[in-house]
Amino acid sequence: MTPRTSREIAELVGGRLAGNADLMVTGVASLQEAQPADLSFLGNDRYKGQVTPSAAGVVLVPESFPEPVPAGRAWIFCANPSAAFSKVVMLFAPPTVTYPPGIHPLAAVDPAARIPASAHVGPFAVIEADAVIGERTVIGAHVFIGRETRIGADCLIYPMVAIRERCVVGDRVIIHIGTTIGSDGFGYITGPQGHTKIPQTGIVQLDDDVELGAQVAVDRARFGKTWIKRGAKIDNLVQIAHNVVIGEFSLVIAQVGIAGSTRLGRGVTLAGQAGLAGHIEIGDGAIMMAQSGTDKDIPAKAIMMGSPAVDRKEFARNQFNLHRIGKLADTVKVLQQEVAELKARLAERDNRR
Amino acid sequence: MTPRTSREIAELVGGRLAGNADLMVTGVASLQEAQPADLSFLGNDRYKGQVTPSAAGVVLVPESFPEPVPAGRAWIFCANPSAAFSKVVMLFAPPTVTYPPGIHPLAAVDPAARIPASAHVGPFAVIEADAVIGERTVIGAHVFIGRETRIGADCLIYPMVAIRERCVVGDRVIIHIGTTIGSDGFGYITGPQGHTKIPQTGIVQLDDDVELGAQVAVDRARFGKTWIKRGAKIDNLVQIAHNVVIGEFSLVIAQVGIAGSTRLGRGVTLAGQAGLAGHIEIGDGAIMMAQSGTDKDIPAKAIMMGSPAVDRKEFARNQFNLHRIGKLADTVKVLQQEVAELKARLAERDNRR
Amino acid sequence: MTPRTSREIAELVGGRLAGNADLMVTGVASLQEAQPADLSFLGNDRYKGQVTPSAAGVVLVPESFPEPVPAGRAWIFCANPSAAFSKVVMLFAPPTVTYPPGIHPLAAVDPAARIPASAHVGPFAVIEADAVIGERTVIGAHVFIGRETRIGADCLIYPMVAIRERCVVGDRVIIHIGTTIGSDGFGYITGPQGHTKIPQTGIVQLDDDVELGAQVAVDRARFGKTWIKRGAKIDNLVQIAHNVVIGEFSLVIAQVGIAGSTRLGRGVTLAGQAGLAGHIEIGDGAIMMAQSGTDKDIPAKAIMMGSPAVDRKEFARNQFNLHRIGKLADTVKVLQQEVAELKARLAERDNRR
Repeated sequence: MTPRTSREIAELVGGRLAGNADLMVTGVASLQEAQPADLSFLGNDRYKGQVTPSAAGVVLVPESFPEPVPAGRAWIFCANPSAAFSKVVMLFAPPTVTYPPGIHPLAAVDPAARIPASAHVGPFAVIEADAVIGERTVIGAHVFIGRETRIGADCLIYPMVAIRERCVVGDRVIIHIGTTIGSDGFGYITGPQGHTKIPQTGIVQLDDDVELGAQVAVDRARFGKTWIKRGAKIDNLVQIAHNVVIGEFSLVIAQVGIAGSTRLGRGVTLAGQAGLAGHIEIGDGAIMMAQSGTDKDIPAKAIMMGSPAVDRKEFARNQFNLHRIGKLADTVKVLQQEVAELKARLAERDNRR
Repeated sequence: MTPRTSREIAELVGGRLAGNADLMVTGVASLQEAQPADLSFLGNDRYKGQVTPSAAGVVLVPESFPEPVPAGRAWIFCANPSAAFSKVVMLFAPPTVTYPPGIHPLAAVDPAARIPASAHVGPFAVIEADAVIGERTVIGAHVFIGRETRIGADCLIYPMVAIRERCVVGDRVIIHIGTTIGSDGFGYITGPQGHTKIPQTGIVQLDDDVELGAQVAVDRARFGKTWIKRGAKIDNLVQIAHNVVIGEFSLVIAQVGIAGSTRLGRGVTLAGQAGLAGHIEIGDGAIMMAQSGTDKDIPAKAIMMGSPAVDRKEFARNQFNLHRIGKLADTVKVLQQEVAELKARLAERDNRR
Repeated sequence: MTPRTSREIAELVGGRLAGNADLMVTGVASLQEAQPADLSFLGNDRYKGQVTPSAAGVVLVPESFPEPVPAGRAWIFCANPSAAFSKVVMLFAPPTVTYPPGIHPLAAVDPAARIPASAHVGPFAVIEADAVIGERTVIGAHVFIGRETRIGADCLIYPMVAIRERCVVGDRVIIHIGTTIGSDGFGYITGPQGHTKIPQTGIVQLDDDVELGAQVAVDRARFGKTWIKRGAKIDNLVQIAHNVVIGEFSLVIAQVGIAGSTRLGRGVTLAGQAGLAGHIEIGDGAIMMAQSGTDKDIPAKAIMMGSPAVDRKEFARNQFNLHRIGKLADTVKVLQQEVAELKARLAERDNRR
């Protein structure tokens, strides 16, 4: 965490420096909170009015940023200021937490579990019989790994994650604190004596490079598998029901719920608190906006809003229409009066004749 | 997991076989994913177009299914293909995980807790003083059972469930991973100095045959009890606030939220992400559809949609009306022109005279 | 839990007694469930019709309560019946669970952690190197405290809470079961090869007197801090994303989601299941009603409903307008007929001439 000059940082991020090249930077901050020795960035157009007023000595800005550099400060023009900022953040970040290889003496590991010497197993972790852990994978404190579950290499399983029996996890998977994988799907046959549980005998499969946030629930399949494909990223507190399939590189934002057997294509985005009914298909690249919901298939690349969700153009039209009703009612009232007058005038003439 | 013939399976499920009686079945799969040695089923009308194209050798179909059996394959006609399928699933399922009686040496059980020899207590479970566990009940790894809490017989408490002090759990209750029972209700008295906590001195009571999903939160009562009655089934990530009462055999789907002191009748269904305000009553058999919300009492057997929720007929009418505004506005515009013309024609005549 | 007379209770709460002063009270209950030896209260106008029919011997009522006391029973008139009731609840409540000072022998505490003798550390808690715990703070069973995290005095950290590295918690903070603090924010840069993780190097800071419910997720900042200010109260299953700021004394009800970098002012209320997009500001004292959602700044003291949220007056007007469309369409139909008739009459005359 040694200070760096604005020139050194411009070189690091491959940006074009304007203004003070010798400014000493000691940390990073948002535009609003930065002090003169901080570097900040313009990553979202919403904040463009904050760059010049900011106290930040150095600001990473997009190449098109038009405002002149105030005296004594510096702009660094970048193709992607947000990506560049991440590099600078790492310069000043505290060292990443690391996990030494080995099994903590307070872990409960079944003798029939297979754990390589390069893996880390934290205190109070439970690893049951016939579970298999990959090279260099970190199993955090209080984690539960059920029987016959297989986890790949270079995974990072944070504390209090539970993965029940027979699930399959790929390589480089990250699972944040408190996420539960492989609980029974919600399935009953309802009769006169109440609800009889349908056995949930399938598994959950997470492919390579998947990341799951904190406190996500992914239910095991009724049969076959609940499947999150390669590179998909899931935010906190998401519900993924039995037999759901999430396509490669899809993004599922916090508190989304996906009911049973629904399938997402590749590169789908579900924004926060969106909800999908069961047994539907969401096409490649489709976007469900925040708080939207649907029980119908969604075509590829559609952008859907509202609940029940409609195409965003239709949503905008509906909103526009909703707002014009008042005016429309006024217009109709005027028309009623005019028609009444016309009728009166015609009737008057009829009488006059 | 020995293979079975289509004839053997038809006998097992009590169905009527049509087609190939000697087909060897080695597993189960969905219509879309099945291979020729798999059995599948038609449990949802949505998939009826997939039966004949499926590669599945054998398909369990409803008695009314009209399509002829392709050569070499078999249909088994059943009154309830989904229930029949569950029986077949169990034939080919891996053995269920079982839990031997006894207390794991790494559990922390207070000497004043009462645990029968038939119960299982997993590693790192904590059972506090004066807690009582029933016969054959399974307490999973990392479970926390607070002081004086009583749990019935034949319960299955999965890892990382926490049940705080003085709660009461019936027989045959299943609680999935990460669910928390008996945290304080959210109650404050707000004054000029901020929010003062209202003591939450009540308990949670779960009656016989209740099942709670993963990561459900059930708050203890301010006084008296938060109460989930017999046979009710709760899905993942549901919020149940203090003093809520959930009637017998009700179904509460994932991510529903129920605010304080609200009472559900018998056989109520709350679909995914629905929300109920506090201090209201939901009548027997009522249904709140997905993402609906209400702060008003709901009559028995009503089917409610939207937020604020209205009867589903009214919801449909509102949706229909919303879509006709554009056309209505066009009609009004035409009327305006026509009225203007009529006025002009009348005025012209008046002038002519 | 000795019985008290109605007179003793009136003195305790500083209320004015009417009716039977010698009634023996042995417990508390809601109006609906109370027995003759119970005390109840009218804390919500919704229940005013239940006071006289209730079996409760004694009822705490607001000073304006108009109904006469039935024979043998008692009213106690109070400025705040709900606050008074809390005092009586404590009279009859079982003793609060207490936690003796000391570190449980089954906890895993790093020798480099600093824990005062007055603190309690429960079984299977993990406290990593350089963590600092304040005087009299309770660290429950199965809690995880990461490296260099600092927790103040008199905090109550319930079982299965996880607080990752370098976070900061003030004094008198309460965190309920299963809440996770300091997981990575959800941030990626998306390129042709998928989503690349943006390092999340900041922390979470909880100021004095904050209370977090069960199973809340508070993500660490991308840089700087995610910040919950003094006296704010958060209910269960809430999602708080990276770099969010929650102002003093704000109330966030269950299942709310707040996306990254959004800032709440002082005394904001977010009702259940509300959702806020990222990078917006919610002004002091503003209220987002249940299930509402916004991606726009909200002015101070506004009361917002719906998704997308509008001022509650506009929301009411929209609802009113939505319901008048049907009638409006009928009116327009009548007008069409009248105009058609007028045209016909004029045309007829033109022909006659």
